[in-house]
Amino acid sequence: MNQPFTDLYVEIQQFYATQVQYLDALRFEEFADTFTEDGVFGHVRGAPAAHGRAGIVAALSEYQERRYGDDPTQRRHWFNMLKVMPQDDGSIVTSYYAVVLATKPGDPVALPTPSCSVQDVLVRQDGRLLAQEREVSADHTL
Amino acid sequence: MNQPFTDLYVEIQQFYATQVQYLDALRFEEFADTFTEDGVFGHVRGAPAAHGRAGIVAALSEYQERRYGDDPTQRRHWFNMLKVMPQDDGSIVTSYYAVVLATKPGDPVALPTPSCSVQDVLVRQDGRLLAQEREVSADHTL
Amino acid sequence: MNQPFTDLYVEIQQFYATQVQYLDALRFEEFADTFTEDGVFGHVRGAPAAHGRAGIVAALSEYQERRYGDDPTQRRHWFNMLKVMPQDDGSIVTSYYAVVLATKPGDPVALPTPSCSVQDVLVRQDGRLLAQEREVSADHTL
Repeated sequence: MNQPFTDLYVEIQQFYATQVQYLDALRFEEFADTFTEDGVFGHVRGAPAAHGRAGIVAALSEYQERRYGDDPTQRRHWFNMLKVMPQDDGSIVTSYYAVVLATKPGDPVALPTPSCSVQDVLVRQDGRLLAQEREVSADHTL
Repeated sequence: MNQPFTDLYVEIQQFYATQVQYLDALRFEEFADTFTEDGVFGHVRGAPAAHGRAGIVAALSEYQERRYGDDPTQRRHWFNMLKVMPQDDGSIVTSYYAVVLATKPGDPVALPTPSCSVQDVLVRQDGRLLAQEREVSADHTL
Repeated sequence: MNQPFTDLYVEIQQFYATQVQYLDALRFEEFADTFTEDGVFGHVRGAPAAHGRAGIVAALSEYQERRYGDDPTQRRHWFNMLKVMPQDDGSIVTSYYAVVLATKPGDPVALPTPSCSVQDVLVRQDGRLLAQEREVSADHTL
C-alpha cells in the first residue's frame, strides 16, 4: 500500500519488460494474463476496446491475423518516458511513449511504426501488479 | 543531500518523462519551468544557448514557428541510456541519448530525427529537481 | 548478495548506460573492461563468440574496420525493456531489446539498424558489476 515510489517505478519497468516479451512472441494468453480479469485494452483508437482476458486474446489474435497473417515480420514494442502516478484509491496511473520496431527477415533496417502515447491504470491484486485499463493513441491517428 | 542513488535515478527518470510531455505538447512555459530561473538550454549546437525561463520559451517558440510552422507533425522526445553522476557540490550531472520520433498525420511510420547525445546539470531547489543547464549535441552535426 | 531488487535494477541501467558510451565512442578496451576476464560476447548470431577481454577488443576492432572502415557514421546503442532476473548462484540474467541508431554526418534522419534482443549473464566481482556473457540476436537474422 505504502510502497516507496522508487520500488514501484522499477517494478513497473520490469512489469512492462515482461509484458512486451509476451506480446512480441505472440503469446497472447500470457499477455492477457497481465491484465485483470475484467481488464480493458483499447489498442486501436476509435475502435471498441477489448474487454476481459478472453476478449484481449481474441482481439489480438484477430488483429494479428488480419494485419499480418503469415508475414514473418518481427515486431518489438518499446515503451519509454514512463511517468508513474499513484492514485488515492491505490491504483496507479501511468503514461508513457511506445513505438513498435518492425523488422523483416533479411533486412537489417527496422521500421518504427507506429509511434504512440499510452495511458494505463494498474492495480495490485494478491500482490501482483496487473493492468486494469490501457488506452493506446497512435500518433498518426491524432 | 544524501539521497540514495537509486531514488535519485528513478526521480530523474520521472522528471524527464514529465518534462518531455510538456515539450511534445508544445507547452513551452511548463517545460521552461522545469529549468532553474537562470537555466541555460543549448538546444542547437553552435547556436547561442537560451538563457532563463523566458529565454527558453522564446527560443523554443521561435524554433517551432520557423522550423515547423503549421506542420501538424507530432514529435516525441525519447531519452535513454541515462547515466547519473552526483557531484560534490550537490548538483547532478546526467548524460543520455535522445531521439525525436516524428509522425505525420495518416502516416504510421515515425521518422527518428535527429539522434542526439545530451548532458544536463540538475540541481535541487526547495525540494524540486530542476535543470540548470542542458547541452544537446545532434549526431548529424558532429 | 541480498541487494534489494530495486537497487540492482537501477545499478544495471547505469551499468548499461556507461557501457554503451564506451562502445559508441569506439573505446573498445574500456568496453571490454565491463566484461569479466573470461567474458563471452556473442555479438553476431551464428558467428563464434568473442572470448576474454582481449578477444572482445579484437572482435570489435575487426568488425568495425571491416563493416565501417572510415565511415564516419555515428552509431548509438539503445537498450530498453530491461528484465532483470537474479539467479540462485548470485549471478543475474538480464534480457532486453537493443537497437542501433545510425546517423551520417549532415543527415538528421537516424536509421534504426538493427533491432535485436539480447540476453546477458552479469556477475559481481570485488563489488563491480561485470558482464560474463552476452548473446545478441538481431531480428533480421531470426
